[in-house]
Order: sequence, then C-alpha cells, then structure tokens
Amino acid sequence: MSTDFFNTHQQMLEQAVAAASARGYWSPFSESPSPRAYGETANDDGRAAFEAYRGGDFPLRQDGAAGSVGGEVSPFGLELNIRYPQVPAQALIGQSEKALDSWREAGPRAWVGVALEILKRLNQRSFEMAYAVQHTTGQGFMMAFQAGGPHAQDRGVEAVAYAWQEMARIPELVSWEKPQGKQDPIKMQKQFTIIPRGVSLVIGCSTFPTWNAYPGLFASLATGNTLIVKPHPAAILPLAITVGIARDVLAEAGFDANVVQLAAHSASDDTAQALALSPAVKLIDFTGSSANGQWLEDHARQAQVYTEKAGVNQVIIDSVDDFKSVARNLAFSFALYSGQMCTAPQNVYIPRDGIRTAEGRLGFDEVAAGLALAIEKLTADPAKAVEVTGAIQNAATLRRIEEARALGLPVLSDSRSLAHPQFEGATVRTPLMLKADADNPAILREWFGPIVFVVATDSTGHSIELARQTVIDHGALSLSAYTTDEAVAGAVQKAAERAGVSLSLNLAGPVFVNQTAAFSDFHGTGANPAANASLSDSAYVANRYRVVQTRWHA
Amino acid sequence: MSTDFFNTHQQMLEQAVAAASARGYWSPFSESPSPRAYGETANDDGRAAFEAYRGGDFPLRQDGAAGSVGGEVSPFGLELNIRYPQVPAQALIGQSEKALDSWREAGPRAWVGVALEILKRLNQRSFEMAYAVQHTTGQGFMMAFQAGGPHAQDRGVEAVAYAWQEMARIPELVSWEKPQGKQDPIKMQKQFTIIPRGVSLVIGCSTFPTWNAYPGLFASLATGNTLIVKPHPAAILPLAITVGIARDVLAEAGFDANVVQLAAHSASDDTAQALALSPAVKLIDFTGSSANGQWLEDHARQAQVYTEKAGVNQVIIDSVDDFKSVARNLAFSFALYSGQMCTAPQNVYIPRDGIRTAEGRLGFDEVAAGLALAIEKLTADPAKAVEVTGAIQNAATLRRIEEARALGLPVLSDSRSLAHPQFEGATVRTPLMLKADADNPAILREWFGPIVFVVATDSTGHSIELARQTVIDHGALSLSAYTTDEAVAGAVQKAAERAGVSLSLNLAGPVFVNQTAAFSDFHGTGANPAANASLSDSAYVANRYRVVQTRWHA
Repeated sequence: MSTDFFNTHQQMLEQAVAAASARGYWSPFSESPSPRAYGETANDDGRAAFEAYRGGDFPLRQDGAAGSVGGEVSPFGLELNIRYPQVPAQALIGQSEKALDSWREAGPRAWVGVALEILKRLNQRSFEMAYAVQHTTGQGFMMAFQAGGPHAQDRGVEAVAYAWQEMARIPELVSWEKPQGKQDPIKMQKQFTIIPRGVSLVIGCSTFPTWNAYPGLFASLATGNTLIVKPHPAAILPLAITVGIARDVLAEAGFDANVVQLAAHSASDDTAQALALSPAVKLIDFTGSSANGQWLEDHARQAQVYTEKAGVNQVIIDSVDDFKSVARNLAFSFALYSGQMCTAPQNVYIPRDGIRTAEGRLGFDEVAAGLALAIEKLTADPAKAVEVTGAIQNAATLRRIEEARALGLPVLSDSRSLAHPQFEGATVRTPLMLKADADNPAILREWFGPIVFVVATDSTGHSIELARQTVIDHGALSLSAYTTDEAVAGAVQKAAERAGVSLSLNLAGPVFVNQTAAFSDFHGTGANPAANASLSDSAYVANRYRVVQTRWHA
Repeated sequence: MSTDFFNTHQQMLEQAVAAASARGYWSPFSESPSPRAYGETANDDGRAAFEAYRGGDFPLRQDGAAGSVGGEVSPFGLELNIRYPQVPAQALIGQSEKALDSWREAGPRAWVGVALEILKRLNQRSFEMAYAVQHTTGQGFMMAFQAGGPHAQDRGVEAVAYAWQEMARIPELVSWEKPQGKQDPIKMQKQFTIIPRGVSLVIGCSTFPTWNAYPGLFASLATGNTLIVKPHPAAILPLAITVGIARDVLAEAGFDANVVQLAAHSASDDTAQALALSPAVKLIDFTGSSANGQWLEDHARQAQVYTEKAGVNQVIIDSVDDFKSVARNLAFSFALYSGQMCTAPQNVYIPRDGIRTAEGRLGFDEVAAGLALAIEKLTADPAKAVEVTGAIQNAATLRRIEEARALGLPVLSDSRSLAHPQFEGATVRTPLMLKADADNPAILREWFGPIVFVVATDSTGHSIELARQTVIDHGALSLSAYTTDEAVAGAVQKAAERAGVSLSLNLAGPVFVNQTAAFSDFHGTGANPAANASLSDSAYVANRYRVVQTRWHA
C-alpha cells in the first residue's frame, strides 16, 4: 500500500530531482492563495478548521499521553486556548523505538512515498496552515500562507528529492565477478540494505515553525528514521497539524502512527533536553538561538546535530544606479515580518564620504535619510503596512527594540506602533533604524527583530572587510551588496566566498535578500557560525542513513 | 595546465563513477605485480629506489624544515635509517593556509585532475611502494604490493569519483525565471561556487599507511582542501613517497607544492595534537586506536573528524557443507598479516553442542580442533607461511600475544615463531587460538594481532545475539557467518543490519572476510563504534566542501 504512494508521486519526485540539479525556478505547489489553485471553498474551509481548534483539545490521539499542555498566544491578540496531548519524553522515545522496528523494514520507496503523500496533504490544507502560522508567529496572512504553506512544503519535497537521489544510487543486489586469468572468475552476490540512523528529533522555532522544520523532518523520514517533532511552546499548532496529517498517512499505509509523534511541552520544562540527550536519538535538527544550538552541539554527542543559529546579516552599499529603488527594496527587507527572519538584513555599511549614483554623489547622511524615508513611506498607511510587518512574535523582541534605543545612538527612523485595522490586540511595530560607527561592538551581535544599524565606514574596502570578518566571527545567513563597479562586485564576491555566505547583488526590484527559493537557492551555507548545514544538499541527507551489505559466493 | 590532467583522466573518472554505482568488479589498476602490467624493469627499479632511500635523507624538500626525524624499524629486520625533514606544526599550518589561498580558486576540474594524476603516478611506482610498505608494516611482499599499491590507489580513485559526482551536480551558472502571470517573469542569474573547508589533516596508521590514508587524503584534495599528511612515526616512508609525488604533480600544474605537506614527527612529541587542535584544520581523517580516535572526536571540535577505530570482528558457525574448506578459509583469515588488519576475525562462536555438516554432526571440540589443524597446516612450511603472515609490526602486538596467553584459557593452537628464509631478523608468529566461554569479558575487547578466541555458546541464537550486542557496544568492521539454513542466514542478516555491520556469508573459497574491494564493498558502515564513516560513499565526501552562491537580476 505504501508503495502506491511512491507510484502516485514518482513523477513529481523525478521533477524535483531534476529541478534540484538544474536550480532554475520550479515548484510543485502554487504559492498563490487563489481559488483556482486551491478550490473555491479552500479559504473558508481553512478558516473554519482553524476556528474549530480554538478553545479546545487539539484532535491528535497520541499513545502515552499524560495530561495536556498549551498556552500559545496570538501576536494578533486572538484568544487561542488550544490544548495538546502531552507525552512524557521517555514514553515518546520508547514508542519511537518501537515504531522504528517496522518502519526501517519498509525501505526507501515506502519512506519516500509516505513523505510525499504527507506533503501533498499538507498542501491541500495550506489555508488552515496559514491561519495557524499567522496566529502563532505573527506573520501577515500572505507570508503565513506562502512561507508556512507551499514554500515550506517545497523545502520538504526538496529534502525528499535529495534523500531519494542519494539512496537510489545504492543498488539492492549486484553480481560481482572478478576475472582470474585462464581460471573461472570469482563470483559473489552482494545485497545492500539502507538502514536508518534511529530516532530523529526536530526542534521547531516560533517564527517559521513549518519552513524551518520541514527540511529536517522530511529528510529524516524519507531515510527511514522515526520522528519526534518538538514544537516551540509558542508555535505548536502548525506542527500539530503537520504531525496529525503524517500520522493519518502512516496509518493508512499500514504503518505504526508513532513513526511521527508530537512532543508538545511547556516552556518551563526540560522536555527538549531530555529528548536531545536520549541515547536513542541519533539525529537532531534545530532552529533557534546560538546558545541553545551550541548546547546541543556540545552535549548531544550521541547524535548528528544540524543547527541553524543566530547571525549578523549585512548590506554593503558602494554605488547604485537608482537609489530610490534600492531604498525601497531595502526598506521592504527591513520591515518584512518585522525583521523576525533569520535572513533579514541588520547592518548597512556606507562609506563615510558617501556613494556614487547615476545622478551624482550622495553623502552618507543623504543615503541614511533616504533609507529612513523609504521606511516611512512603506509604513505610512497602517492597513498596508501591517500586511508587510505582521506582528511582533514575543515580548523579548519588543524588549530588544527598547534595548537598542537605550544604546543612545542617533535615531534615523524610530520604531512606531501601528494600529491593526483587523486585530485590535495586535502588536505591530515599524523598524527602528540607528546610526552607528564601525567600531561599535553593538553591531557585532544579532538584534533579532525590526532593528537596523546604518554604519559609517572608511571606504567600501573597509565595508567589505568588516562584513567578511563579521561573517567569520559571528555568522550570517545573507549578505547583500550594491555596486555598479565590476571590480567591487568581484571583491565582495571573493569576500563572501572566503567567509562562506550567500551574496545577493544589486537587488532593487521584486526580489528581496530575505527570500530564498527552494530547488534553486541554498538556504545557509554550513560554512559560517550561523548554520552548520545547508537546506538542502547531499551533505544534509547522506548521513541520515547508512548502508549494510551482505555478500556470499554466487 | 591543470585542466589537462582532468582531460587526461576524464575517461577513467567516468568509469569510476559508473563502477561506484554498479558496484560490480572494477579497477583501473592491475593488482598483479607482473612485468606485463608494470614493465620488465619495474620490480628492479622499485627495489633500487627503495634501497636508495636507506641510510640517508629522504629527497623531499619542504619549506620551513627545522631539522630531521626518522627511526623507522623494518619488522623484517632490515636497517632503514631514513631521515625526513621535520617542519614545526605552526609552519605547516601557515604554509597550508597560504597554499589554500590559490588552490581554492582552481576549482573542481583542477582539483580532480591533479588528484587523479597523483594516483596514476603512484600506480607507476607500485613496486617502490611495495618495498616501502613491506619494510615499515611487516606485510608480506604480495600484500604490500596489492594493499599498499593498486588497492590503496583504487580507494583513492573511488573517493575522487564520489567527490566529483557530488560536485559535478552543482551548476556553475544558471538562469532563474519565475513566471508572474501576465506580467514579465522575474529573471535572476545565479552563480554557484564550490568552496573547500580549509586545511585537512590525515593521520596515518602503522599497518596500512596508504590504504587507510588515501580515501581521506584524496577526498579532501579533490574537494579543494589543502593537506597535511601526518604518518605514524613507524611508517613514514610510504606516505613520504606519496607526498613527494603529490608535490611534483602540483608544481608541474603550476600550484603551490605546499597544497600537500608531510608532517613527519617522532612518537614522543605532540605534533598530532598540535595539528589536530589548530583552528585552521577543518577536516581530520584518522585511523588508529579507539583512545586516540575518541580524543580527536572530543577535542578537535573545530573540525569534522572521520575516524576508523578498534572493533571486535566475529564469526558465527551454525552449519556447513564442507567443514574443511571452511576451516581453510578461516585459518587463512586468522593468519593473514598476523591478524593485524582492522577486518581480521577475532571471536568464533560455535554452539556448545556442535554444528551440522553435510557429513553429519561435528562436536564443539571437533570444530575447534579442525580450526586449529587448519592453522597448523597453513603454517607448516615456514617459507610459504611467512608470505601469508608477514611479520609483527610492533612490540605491543608481540606483548599482546603474551597477555592473551596469560589469560590462562585452554590453548587450541599456540603461537609459534617462524624463521623467515629471506630475512633473518624478521619477527614472524603463527596465530594463537584460545578457547573461551561466552561470558568471558576478555572477548569483548579488540586483541589486535594473531589472537583468536573460539567461544562456546548455548546455541546459534545465542551466537547471533552475542555478535549483535558486541557490535553495538564495541564496534566491528566485519561479521562472518556460516550456515546452510536460510532462516538462520536471515536472522544473522537482520542482526547485522540492526547492529550496522557488513556481513559475509559462507566464505569457503578464495574470498576472505578480511578483504573488501573498492567500488563494490563499503569498508566500514559508519553505523557502529568501530568507524564513524564508510569508505567511500556520498556522506564521506559531501561535507568536505560547501557551496556559496551569488545572485543578481538578469
């Protein structure tokens, strides 16, 4: 039965494998929340499903549940009050090991087929997921739909495609025949079995609960491992929906539903540590703070640990054709989901003596003022602005804005509260933009949220060197540069390649440095402290399984 | 110029990539030391080259050398007295980082071309290498030729093939075009650059200095990293020859010869630790003791560490067709290079009530006596025996034989000294075979050398469970089983797959459990404590480089 799912999705799988090699534009899913793609009633159905979850027990039956847990708060002020079954860590581990016993025997076609069927059903429920993501993360609806739905699903399919590509090259049974001159050849039969690592733990984050969890989740599932999905206590719902769908598909295919389990827990308990240190857990995928990621790398030594941590994303402005379009592009990147993206730019480096433009030289202060003006324009109409900024996910980010203000640096654009026309209780803020000197140590840490430093440097060469060293020392997921000078572009590219960070050059239109596209852009390089892996590549999947061979004389 | 090397070897590379997928028999090199394959004067030339090294300074010019070091002792008693340039760890690191600066720019075709040219030249000097390996490791000449020469080179080519296969799927430049309904599509150009990790340290062992070093060495070189090759102080010559050839090829191709450096050092200094802990060292490949391997994994946290450590290899005898051929096969595996192979069998599990054979039941004592008799026969003629056993590499292994004798267990076959007809000073020993109970803790550790325990178990089921748990707890590189019962074969295979160890079934002819063939057999699974990686697979190469992308509007 599970093989049917493989047959059902084989064509998409082959397209996905081809797309990941060609790295052009491709997606199996529509990113537009349109009735044409998802059906006339999709939005209403999705909203109704979301509303039905509010104020009740989430409909997920899990073995070994001992009570329930909840407490998510919508950044838009909506009451949620959803309760999830809570299963003690030891019960989760025991059930996962038991499920592994049969799941491992199913083999690559079944693993991949089940994974793709789960992704297909997730796609069909993208509206429901959009509301769930919106009201846990604070993302505006469009972003919640795209990043929480089809774009996250894309990353899941991508991980499955890489896993399949690597596993498919291992033959199941081969004849080995070694010539012996005039004597008969030596003949052996060899069988190769792909074996999973064991129990795989996925630790979700509060801002992109699905987008950041799906690559590891589906890479591990497609390579035969069992999953314990531990959501951030502030964003359980999107992963609870995901786990529910996964368990339905597993049961339909005749497998133990405990192949995928949810580890909902409260922020104050030690579930994450208990799971991470279990000897049965062999794989951990984590997105979150550098402190927690480093703790996992240092302590969960029995597991392979894939981490995405904090970084300092930077922008170098050397010279531009049309400054206004550059400022518009950057203002959008600063405001998009209030900088609560691991790829959001934070430090903007501008030479103290200004930049060249097609219309003549602009002084440093003019550039800084131009960036501030672009933010003001973008956020002038609250009704439009809130769709870009969304809401602030948690109080720590709000406090961080105050902490940045307290640095006492010159304010180029102050962070204002905006009234949300739809949600009275929403916490909406415009970006805070400060002016800083290049030697201010404050710019060497991540200020997660809508906080931007415009930094005066001695020269573009200084900007490049500052960016390079900051990536090496503190990590980064994105680097952006603006220059009309080919030699400067070459120097920035060389610095990016030495430091190991992705570079976007001269983005001044509808593409933003915060965004990466599955099947084309690698998310993270795995080559600087911000992440030890890349989404997705061969290295991300190839060590989630091993091969055991048996040989005998033919 | 370097690209020429790629063109020169492209056909072999493509054959190697195909062979690694098909996993049938293939090798680009002749394993026979015949004049037809290597030329009429190859043996004489090789011997002469080896003789010329004795009693002098090895002709390797390395920058930053501060004195010389040596002290290798031939296990066959030949005087060596070869001196090698000694370069302080900090100088090696500095020179490697400097060489990396240009080597990284050369790109995959140049890296792969240079690697394959080095391997081709190594092959041409296989006789010289055979003498070098023989007189450092104690291997018999035929094994020294094959395992030190063509088979090691095979493993090198295999690693390069995997590296190329993974790197080749990363496109250099692509157009990305995202449809926008009725509007013009968004068009981006994206460039992908493969970047090396940094400085790669290869730590060689004293028994297979080339075979165990080449996979990591060539995997790292072919992915753009620079190499520091640290030989075991007892087996420097084979890797010194290797490094010399590598530096010649690099210089001819116009690269900094310091892309590959030799770190010869004395056993008493801390060169290995100093190199392993350098922040510049990002990759470490190690073969050796569990203690040293574990130290590297625990302390060299800045690097990815690939280790092959100790294990307990096991044989399960359940039932056989022809016991004599089984005993002959096993006796050869026990005696081959005096058990100084990471794949050599150590524990033989036989049910207390004996085994079934085609000619009726054989009691435990009869089976044990039969194995002992096969050893006696194999070693009866010293002139023939020494070609199989070679010599004992070091005094610790000799002491281990005495330590095993001192366990006080019943001796089934005692270890005898054999006179070597050619080398008076050779230390040659036959295998020591002891009888042990299944609950004797002595059988749960590796007894590296010609030491075998014949273990009485309650049943074949007990044998399988003992083998399975021992692999999980203590690691293993090989498991061998003899059974004429399909259900038992299935149960052993399941246990092997759960424990993560390669299985050989019913080897009773010219294939031995100790041997693995490149392009077909994975060496190590990476799934049990004996090794954290497999030679070679995608996981072994894919994380030795990263990809940095640059994108811009088309």
